[in-house]
Amino acid sequence: MIYVIGIGPGGFDEITPRAFEIMKSCDVIAGYTVYVELIKKYFPEKIFYISGMRAERERCLMALKFSREHNYDVALISSGDAGVYGMAGLMLELADDEEVKIIPGITAANSCAAVLGAPLMNDYVIISLSDLLTEWDVIEKRLICACEGDFVICIYNPASNHRPEHFKRACEIIRRYKPDTTPAGYVRNIGREDEEAKVTTLGEIINCNIDMLCTVIIGNSQSCILNGKFITKRGYNNILPS
Amino acid sequence: MIYVIGIGPGGFDEITPRAFEIMKSCDVIAGYTVYVELIKKYFPEKIFYISGMRAERERCLMALKFSREHNYDVALISSGDAGVYGMAGLMLELADDEEVKIIPGITAANSCAAVLGAPLMNDYVIISLSDLLTEWDVIEKRLICACEGDFVICIYNPASNHRPEHFKRACEIIRRYKPDTTPAGYVRNIGREDEEAKVTTLGEIINCNIDMLCTVIIGNSQSCILNGKFITKRGYNNILPS
Repeated sequence: MIYVIGIGPGGFDEITPRAFEIMKSCDVIAGYTVYVELIKKYFPEKIFYISGMRAERERCLMALKFSREHNYDVALISSGDAGVYGMAGLMLELADDEEVKIIPGITAANSCAAVLGAPLMNDYVIISLSDLLTEWDVIEKRLICACEGDFVICIYNPASNHRPEHFKRACEIIRRYKPDTTPAGYVRNIGREDEEAKVTTLGEIINCNIDMLCTVIIGNSQSCILNGKFITKRGYNNILPS
Repeated sequence: MIYVIGIGPGGFDEITPRAFEIMKSCDVIAGYTVYVELIKKYFPEKIFYISGMRAERERCLMALKFSREHNYDVALISSGDAGVYGMAGLMLELADDEEVKIIPGITAANSCAAVLGAPLMNDYVIISLSDLLTEWDVIEKRLICACEGDFVICIYNPASNHRPEHFKRACEIIRRYKPDTTPAGYVRNIGREDEEAKVTTLGEIINCNIDMLCTVIIGNSQSCILNGKFITKRGYNNILPS
């Protein structure tokens, strides 16, 4: 049996008891180096299978091998939610008749939003700027549609060493539709010791140091900054009885 | 001090230890009747403040009163994530100089996706069909933009007794852009004992009994159904080295 598990933003206290108990019950814990390091100390007895970035396919095939050849239960872990740009989809694609269960975790959009305030109270999109698996034209089209629909926009993978300009390019597109005063914010290293956050505006965030460790949220027409918090109004204050 | 806490989909084992410890440390737990009932038995010593639907504003004002007048620590709870159509935004709007901290939880999009397979592996939108606080014209425009951007669409509040036709109307809009064979699915009562899920297609889901207890996901051009699971491909299988 293979479990694909989201371990949340990074802190041990944000792993659900459901995810924890399943990891405890498994024989093997497999995942990207950084994530396995985060949880290793809680499970000293396990077999760990660690692999690097871009080794996702090989990691899934190893999980299958452990399960099929050794009859091991395998926990394949992702940070955040394994079903959001994580390992869940690929594992299900490769699993064939092997049983696979997905265990959700808190994804970066939600943990980032909680640090900044409440920017996701209204309809929102999640867009990854990584063009490793999606063509840039598609990403650009999606940014435009997100603006036209007045969605709050949450950006995953805003930049990397190989594509430092992606985030600025995305901002330039968004600025054609949303005013520079639109609230925006980012969190770097969410849930880790060196977490760092900033609430600012669309006009300013383009000059911030946004790297691959950041999650970014850009507001919609209902967003505001109040006492340093980034909030998107849902409307309660206006139309519900007081 | 006021904490606005997301308790996840409903099962006790999907409340993060962080959320649990904060509830344990608070004097008062406040929330919508159903959610407070879910967690009441774990905290027999607390003061509970329970109120009904649409009493959100009054609930926030009571939390403020408890904190200001009695110096109580208050846990204001929402199901799922409090920052997604939950209590976080309104509480921050009303808080003024009172300290408010948002504690994230697993939102319905992620718990629904995990039950259905891995439909959110590619860029997606979350849209609520409730027109209580957003005009229907805006909702319709957002559905169209979501289709034009080839996003996976996750629908919250698909219907209620007051608006049983909303879901069908939304499907009719989406069907103008996406083929009837597009994978789709829903989960009713996620994480509860009577959880019920179905993987189907856009053409069929319009005839399913979708009510206010359901979360719905409709795929994009990269979605497929494989061994009964709803998966949106991210591309790994095609372009990463095997």
